[in-house]
Amino acid sequence: MHSPGYSFRETSRDGNARTGLLVTPHGEVETPTFMPVGTQGSVKTLSPTEVAATGARIVLGNTYHLWIRPGPDIIARAGGLHKFASWPHVMLTDSGGFQAFSLADRRTMTEDGFVFRSHIDGSRLALSPEVAMEVQGKIGADIAMQLDVCPPGMSARPELERACATTTRWARRCLAAKRPDQALFGIVQGGTDVALRKAHAEELAAMPFDGLALGGFSVGEPIERMHEVLGEVAPTLDRARPHYLMGVGTPSDLVRAIGTGVDMFDCVLPTRNARNGQALTQRGRIVIKQARYKEDFTPLDPTCSCPACTGGYTRAYLRHLYLAGEILVLRLITEHNLHLYGRLVREAREAIAAGRYASFARAWLGSDGDEP
Amino acid sequence: MHSPGYSFRETSRDGNARTGLLVTPHGEVETPTFMPVGTQGSVKTLSPTEVAATGARIVLGNTYHLWIRPGPDIIARAGGLHKFASWPHVMLTDSGGFQAFSLADRRTMTEDGFVFRSHIDGSRLALSPEVAMEVQGKIGADIAMQLDVCPPGMSARPELERACATTTRWARRCLAAKRPDQALFGIVQGGTDVALRKAHAEELAAMPFDGLALGGFSVGEPIERMHEVLGEVAPTLDRARPHYLMGVGTPSDLVRAIGTGVDMFDCVLPTRNARNGQALTQRGRIVIKQARYKEDFTPLDPTCSCPACTGGYTRAYLRHLYLAGEILVLRLITEHNLHLYGRLVREAREAIAAGRYASFARAWLGSDGDEP
Ligand SMILES: [Zn+2]
Ligand SMILES: [Zn+2]
Repeated sequence: MHSPGYSFRETSRDGNARTGLLVTPHGEVETPTFMPVGTQGSVKTLSPTEVAATGARIVLGNTYHLWIRPGPDIIARAGGLHKFASWPHVMLTDSGGFQAFSLADRRTMTEDGFVFRSHIDGSRLALSPEVAMEVQGKIGADIAMQLDVCPPGMSARPELERACATTTRWARRCLAAKRPDQALFGIVQGGTDVALRKAHAEELAAMPFDGLALGGFSVGEPIERMHEVLGEVAPTLDRARPHYLMGVGTPSDLVRAIGTGVDMFDCVLPTRNARNGQALTQRGRIVIKQARYKEDFTPLDPTCSCPACTGGYTRAYLRHLYLAGEILVLRLITEHNLHLYGRLVREAREAIAAGRYASFARAWLGSDGDEP
Repeated sequence: MHSPGYSFRETSRDGNARTGLLVTPHGEVETPTFMPVGTQGSVKTLSPTEVAATGARIVLGNTYHLWIRPGPDIIARAGGLHKFASWPHVMLTDSGGFQAFSLADRRTMTEDGFVFRSHIDGSRLALSPEVAMEVQGKIGADIAMQLDVCPPGMSARPELERACATTTRWARRCLAAKRPDQALFGIVQGGTDVALRKAHAEELAAMPFDGLALGGFSVGEPIERMHEVLGEVAPTLDRARPHYLMGVGTPSDLVRAIGTGVDMFDCVLPTRNARNGQALTQRGRIVIKQARYKEDFTPLDPTCSCPACTGGYTRAYLRHLYLAGEILVLRLITEHNLHLYGRLVREAREAIAAGRYASFARAWLGSDGDEP
């Protein structure tokens, strides 16, 4: 890594899967790692202590949301997002571009970035590479992300090429504008076009980025196609830098992507599904409102060490709380799901270090459906 | 107290204020005490461990809500509400009558009780004294409450007299139908008519109730009138039994009522106000959404030892979470408010034991308005 105070090294390898150690000013992160999403400066429903108890040592903040509310100046005056949100470990922010494009109203894109209206108060905002660096600089996470162009999944080649070219030009501008004491990751685009992905990855790897992210996945393309492309692209990324697959995915998606050499993940799935009453387990999903759990006086997962599974709460009680609209259940299932992700990456690291990643991975591949 | 496994004794006295010790099969409770309200089997937003950390050793469950959902039979099969809700300490349930009358649809009252429609699914339910005992018996709290008639505040004397007479007849039926291993409290009615209150209290004190509750307060009468009546009635209640003032109130209401000899309280105020973004302090309320807190980087209350005040959360951050609709803030303010109530009753006990209750009480009387 190039920014002072940061380093990354591979610590073991099993096929394309690898473990690593990411060092930052807010501590070390063992990889592969999962970053819970703290959209608005809070991993929804949880305290920072509870987030850390899931094993997470790095969380993601959404620049778009924090820019609009409470605003980067208030966060800066609070002493940065770590202090504002009482999170003592590592923090990464996205560039805001993805949400500006997907959530904001009347957005347009030019060579200079995105112009859009806030989805909260309609105010006009302009997000250029320089503004993305300025806002992320004020938020003050350890790792910032470059502004990029993320076309819809399965876009045609000309659109993917234009997105890659603009992303590369914005990459240079972000590197020139970044805070010296923040790390900055470049974002590889190229959709499901393997040649384009590889070429774009080489372009970005030639720049002094601290890490390389794979963007533009899980944006509408078939999930099997994503894994095919990952299998060809991820193993070719520069091994001296961490590889971050953005916005992915289910437990089995993580397991497959780790097998291709991905080191970092973020996804709203464990937290969002929890708020919809879906508890994830290695045996599949538990949709807690279902009548089958009405008199099920067992914990969500007897093999899980989370507060929901060890606190005496039964599926019948959690179902009651969910149907009664009680907030406690949203937190308990969120904790459970993040503990599952924390356990998944911890056991993946152990399996890689022990050279038994393939058999570890097989044990997770049936976990995407409902519990039998 | 009359039921086996229960006892109560006064441990110190300062004027009419007193401390006491309530012993139950689920542990001891020092009085005066505040019972957080766990309407639907959960003190809203909090885990049982967090509730106990506020100092609470007894919580209240609402029979009406638990009867309708999940139903007393499921709770009984779960092993009772203590086990279902993972609450190891003492528990009290109300009779369901108050909510049946205030929440349910198309309710009517006869000599046999209330008939009403569930506000959830419209099903027809009949709540007689015997059913109130049966449902509370299945829920299995330590302390059950008799079915009573609670007329609106400032009702005319004939209506108050009829309510007292019916409550007395239902008191006998509840005592005859109660589970032998549950304690049962009688409920004194009589509105703001001191003579009627005293006469009704004597009628109920002649029966083998384990405690005496004051119902029918805080139901529309002026709050000063309530305190006047309390000041005349509460000191005359049988001192061998605990005195429970139902549904009251603000911190200063508690302090004044303790001064008249009340031992037990429940109220949704600290938990409901928290969910409306109102943090209570000895200096007054903090309405967290107010712009004055936008860049206030201090804790809610620097003298408070709750997780919200000691976890590094500033008013500015809590305001941001509240405006952003983040659930975490509802929990943090709920914890704060219940810690305040826990501290209030603990310090009240200390002040009574030390013979300085009057000066303690004066320090709380200005706490009902907004923070200056
Ligand atoms: Zn669990
Ligand atoms: Zn506090």
